[in-house]
Amino acid sequence: MRISFANDYSEGCLPEILENLSKTNFEQISGYGLDSYSKSAISKIEELLGAEPDQVDIHFTVGGTQANLIVISHVLKPYSGVLSAPQGHIATHESAAIEATGHKVIMLDADPYSGKIDAQTLAAFLNEYWANPEPEHSPFPGMIYFSNATEYGTLYSAEEISAIRDVADKYDISIFMDGARLGTALTAEPGVLSFGQLLDLVDVFTIGGTKNGALSGEAIVFTNRKYNYGNRFRWTLKQRGGMLAKGRLLGIQFDTLFTDDLYFRAAKHANRMADLLRTGLKQRNVKFWTETKTNQLFILIAPEMKQMLLQDFIFLDWLIPTEQQLSELGLEKSDQEYHVIRLVTSWATQKEWIEQFLNRWDDFANL
Amino acid sequence: MRISFANDYSEGCLPEILENLSKTNFEQISGYGLDSYSKSAISKIEELLGAEPDQVDIHFTVGGTQANLIVISHVLKPYSGVLSAPQGHIATHESAAIEATGHKVIMLDADPYSGKIDAQTLAAFLNEYWANPEPEHSPFPGMIYFSNATEYGTLYSAEEISAIRDVADKYDISIFMDGARLGTALTAEPGVLSFGQLLDLVDVFTIGGTKNGALSGEAIVFTNRKYNYGNRFRWTLKQRGGMLAKGRLLGIQFDTLFTDDLYFRAAKHANRMADLLRTGLKQRNVKFWTETKTNQLFILIAPEMKQMLLQDFIFLDWLIPTEQQLSELGLEKSDQEYHVIRLVTSWATQKEWIEQFLNRWDDFANL
Amino acid sequence: MRISFANDYSEGCLPEILENLSKTNFEQISGYGLDSYSKSAISKIEELLGAEPDQVDIHFTVGGTQANLIVISHVLKPYSGVLSAPQGHIATHESAAIEATGHKVIMLDADPYSGKIDAQTLAAFLNEYWANPEPEHSPFPGMIYFSNATEYGTLYSAEEISAIRDVADKYDISIFMDGARLGTALTAEPGVLSFGQLLDLVDVFTIGGTKNGALSGEAIVFTNRKYNYGNRFRWTLKQRGGMLAKGRLLGIQFDTLFTDDLYFRAAKHANRMADLLRTGLKQRNVKFWTETKTNQLFILIAPEMKQMLLQDFIFLDWLIPTEQQLSELGLEKSDQEYHVIRLVTSWATQKEWIEQFLNRWDDFANL
Amino acid sequence: MRISFANDYSEGCLPEILENLSKTNFEQISGYGLDSYSKSAISKIEELLGAEPDQVDIHFTVGGTQANLIVISHVLKPYSGVLSAPQGHIATHESAAIEATGHKVIMLDADPYSGKIDAQTLAAFLNEYWANPEPEHSPFPGMIYFSNATEYGTLYSAEEISAIRDVADKYDISIFMDGARLGTALTAEPGVLSFGQLLDLVDVFTIGGTKNGALSGEAIVFTNRKYNYGNRFRWTLKQRGGMLAKGRLLGIQFDTLFTDDLYFRAAKHANRMADLLRTGLKQRNVKFWTETKTNQLFILIAPEMKQMLLQDFIFLDWLIPTEQQLSELGLEKSDQEYHVIRLVTSWATQKEWIEQFLNRWDDFANL
Repeated sequence: MRISFANDYSEGCLPEILENLSKTNFEQISGYGLDSYSKSAISKIEELLGAEPDQVDIHFTVGGTQANLIVISHVLKPYSGVLSAPQGHIATHESAAIEATGHKVIMLDADPYSGKIDAQTLAAFLNEYWANPEPEHSPFPGMIYFSNATEYGTLYSAEEISAIRDVADKYDISIFMDGARLGTALTAEPGVLSFGQLLDLVDVFTIGGTKNGALSGEAIVFTNRKYNYGNRFRWTLKQRGGMLAKGRLLGIQFDTLFTDDLYFRAAKHANRMADLLRTGLKQRNVKFWTETKTNQLFILIAPEMKQMLLQDFIFLDWLIPTEQQLSELGLEKSDQEYHVIRLVTSWATQKEWIEQFLNRWDDFANL
Repeated sequence: MRISFANDYSEGCLPEILENLSKTNFEQISGYGLDSYSKSAISKIEELLGAEPDQVDIHFTVGGTQANLIVISHVLKPYSGVLSAPQGHIATHESAAIEATGHKVIMLDADPYSGKIDAQTLAAFLNEYWANPEPEHSPFPGMIYFSNATEYGTLYSAEEISAIRDVADKYDISIFMDGARLGTALTAEPGVLSFGQLLDLVDVFTIGGTKNGALSGEAIVFTNRKYNYGNRFRWTLKQRGGMLAKGRLLGIQFDTLFTDDLYFRAAKHANRMADLLRTGLKQRNVKFWTETKTNQLFILIAPEMKQMLLQDFIFLDWLIPTEQQLSELGLEKSDQEYHVIRLVTSWATQKEWIEQFLNRWDDFANL
Repeated sequence: MRISFANDYSEGCLPEILENLSKTNFEQISGYGLDSYSKSAISKIEELLGAEPDQVDIHFTVGGTQANLIVISHVLKPYSGVLSAPQGHIATHESAAIEATGHKVIMLDADPYSGKIDAQTLAAFLNEYWANPEPEHSPFPGMIYFSNATEYGTLYSAEEISAIRDVADKYDISIFMDGARLGTALTAEPGVLSFGQLLDLVDVFTIGGTKNGALSGEAIVFTNRKYNYGNRFRWTLKQRGGMLAKGRLLGIQFDTLFTDDLYFRAAKHANRMADLLRTGLKQRNVKFWTETKTNQLFILIAPEMKQMLLQDFIFLDWLIPTEQQLSELGLEKSDQEYHVIRLVTSWATQKEWIEQFLNRWDDFANL
Repeated sequence: MRISFANDYSEGCLPEILENLSKTNFEQISGYGLDSYSKSAISKIEELLGAEPDQVDIHFTVGGTQANLIVISHVLKPYSGVLSAPQGHIATHESAAIEATGHKVIMLDADPYSGKIDAQTLAAFLNEYWANPEPEHSPFPGMIYFSNATEYGTLYSAEEISAIRDVADKYDISIFMDGARLGTALTAEPGVLSFGQLLDLVDVFTIGGTKNGALSGEAIVFTNRKYNYGNRFRWTLKQRGGMLAKGRLLGIQFDTLFTDDLYFRAAKHANRMADLLRTGLKQRNVKFWTETKTNQLFILIAPEMKQMLLQDFIFLDWLIPTEQQLSELGLEKSDQEYHVIRLVTSWATQKEWIEQFLNRWDDFANL
């Protein structure tokens, strides 16, 4: 049986979740997210955010693509689109789910290595758009979307998001932060960004369960920072198929995740395992496509080494760098070919797996 | 604590499901429904249907509204709509989920008591539509939708569906049977309709998990009877947010449900409990809004009785009959007022609850 | 050549329009509705409405279905639908154009003869909707739509619309009046409703050109009475294909129509011709399906008479009344069969045509 | 009054059109495109194409964005998107009209100067897409779109389209050629592409009226080459607001355009005027952004010269080239700054205007 570093959703869920599902199984409770567990989970998240009563709107839905399409189609005006990095999940890996709701994902230049957008690029885009005397012929930019942690495992700091927020406010567009991997983002580096700061920084964000130890599920948090975007969200949630009859499935999971800090403990574990792997690979002089502090690592690897490791491990091919990229990464043009692969750790990753991976690396390196 | 007859999704799930989720929890498996449990579940359903290899396409998704909107938007042509009884779930209780995908739910007259459509009414509708020399100004009927068991707990026989199929084939429209309560429908009366007959009778149907003992989940079965409607369905499933990263959650549940006949055993239990309740109520001369054999009962009840029962039980108000309806139901116009309530049993209903309900009825009747 | 009373768009256009198109043909002017003729037309309409500068937003688009779908999809929230009489044009004769934009047309009971809705029915509907503790499962009513003149040629008075407005404001829904036949509506009866009153009565309305002497085109007027619904409308207009490169085609037409009262003069002619026909038919004891004052007449006619008249005239079959309807209309149940046909006059109807029609009637009646 | 080279829709229409609109103005004819003029126009186009009876489906609609969105949403499967050059009209200048119908415009690399795609790039894209074992997470490529003439005035030859067709057929995607400027494309160079060849080369194409002398209007031709894509198109046309009540407006225009070769004579005039201008500019050593043979010219111009010319002429700023582009265009890096402007001629352009433009150029060049 190969060990998988393919993603952070290969296992089932944190055992505490199954335990609570079992414990509560025969209770007869309300459906559609109005049960006591969902309410308790909401209270715990509100408290952790430091939100005033009735300040925020929190809802649960089953999956990440679902959360993205429901939130975006709820918030956007009918004629408007959402700006995203070309690497953004909604732009690449959701089979045009946003477009299927009638809205365009508009490309905003991003750093090719980190997958991050920045406030300057956003400002330049919006400024040019609104400098056009007849802008109505081009897709209307109504929202800025970014993932944190990003699809490349990188992070946004509070300062970076604050700068984006200032631009967004100037041009009156909303900010949606996709937190499918929010756990590992917030626990990667102290002081970079705190949970409570999000209240003031973004209009809506998700708290990913699926990639952080839940069976499935994302929390959606409308901060209602500037506008009451969360208003009537239950209608959109229902209409788009995101509201479960047995809402308890989500309520109990998030109630468990936000009890005794389980959500962040699980994320820290994933990050710790990634640190171990990262340190080991650096010691072996492996080049990284981009520097990350979270549970995703993107490394350059010789195709032969890749093939050998695939005998014992599962991981994903990410891309094949161009010569220019190799040169930018400081890899002299040589006969050596490189691929970029992605290695992902999770709440379920075992320390031994990292050791086995590094050992096999050494075995092959010494061939 | 009041006992609930409000619906069939008040509890968690059949214990076998939690057991299997626990047993497999740390296995690292593929995502997005390509795991071995999903495949095993598909095989079991295929076998039970008596389907040839590659004949049918089976997929899993999380909820009923989700299944309906994904199936309908996948099968319909861009310009076409779906015919439904006014009582149909998609017409009443899904917050315009079908319309949100761009398709109209077109009303087809149905029996007001049973909520059933019939082949004659369908034929008359389609005949009139196509007799119009310029039909393109009216919504195009491209599919017929019905639930079985219906929203009123009634059943369609193989003969009735066969007659609908003949009309549908004549006018080249597809047939979608919403099986949110398929379990109780197929086990209510021997000989009325068998699972395998569906292969030849409808183009696509669902097998409801949520209302029959699953935590959540519906199986979608494309019979590909006439056209290959199941083609490329994974794209639509992904695009509409219906594909889970942890597809195991659905695969393990359906694999469990279709092992040792659990799915139908659970349904039979619900029907048996309904039978007990029905018999008891009939002995007490209670009038039924419509005759059902499945786990939903709709009865006429005096408002005072209703209020008293609500102290100990939970159930839903359904409607207040008009005088004409009361007269059609054989209730002489008198001073007695009546409401219609719905009582639902499930896989989790206990025999004692029925007894308690009937006892309380007697208590109040004797006041 | 048969004379047509089939509709009010059988001819080309008022000669003044062709004249002005010719006169301006070689002027090089701006596209997309920003030309001087469009601006002049807007000013004239604003003045006639008595609108303050910048109070209203006025746009032009090519057709009625187009105007309806663009306005409704622009104004509605993503999750909401539009209430309409079952006889409403958007509910019957636009091939599910509204649903194709993702919004449901929700049925509101209306008078079967006049096709009119009323404030009481609307209030009852909205009250019941919001009395439901979990309304999010049913389609959200976000707008009320009605046509004036209606599809049955009847009229709404300022008082009736005012009552609808009060209900709409109470429940915070918007009001859209489809004015495809606004000309004949406003000129049918003095004092019933004036153009300027619309500023305070509805949120958006159209001024139909196609059915009142234009080659094609509808003006869309956002009154911005309560909310700034007209905001960013050029984006939606463009996105839905409703903005013409040669906006002059619409600008010149509406500038012509609103010069020297041409729009209302054309409508008055249509109404006058209808009056002649109505009077003549009444003198012949013809029964009307509903009383109208505008350019549409719906009459009960014996099938044999209908067939004979169709030799010389074109008109549309509307419906075949039920026995109950015949009795409600005061037509004793007898051997005589009746059909309802529609007769329409227009800006181009000639007085002689009416006379010929009545003469032929007499010829046949005397057979 | 400045002379405009801003676009090919600044004037009204070819005088023959107004003449025929006047001549037929009082004829009472059928609505919705079923009139005799529309039928006659269809016959003439069929004949010119050399199409067999019932081979093709031809419809008319009012505008280009409208035609694009209606055709694409009609042909695409619900889950699929359309490939386009980044410069494609649907990708840039239609305010996300395609996305508003639920479909993504997927970027396919194109030549930055000519705006053309090619068969090799298409094949590479599709090959990579289908090499992915789980392609369903990425937007499904279901159609290839290109304009001819392109947005940069360049042309596709029959050979180039044939190569694209072979790739499209291999991967079973449809081909839509946007012919907003088909007239100038087909008449620019003998032997490059003929009207009749389109029958075998593409699945659907438009014949642009608006940019070739019509008041408004595009013909849509489904060749039904491989599949019956034109089937039921009247439903989509109606539903999307593209069907005019007074279809005569389009029928008479296209009937006129396809009488006595008027459509192509108008296009040839536009091309001839462009040739004059092109020759004159080349004589003055002006650099072109891309070589064109049609009625659009893209030239590099010093900002000062641009400003001076704008006193007497209207034309559009197109872009400001990067240093790399300037170097690729053979313009040595120097102190001289360049802008790219677009100059457009049309059926209405007068020879004197070209002469005046070149004279003013000389005046300023000699300053």
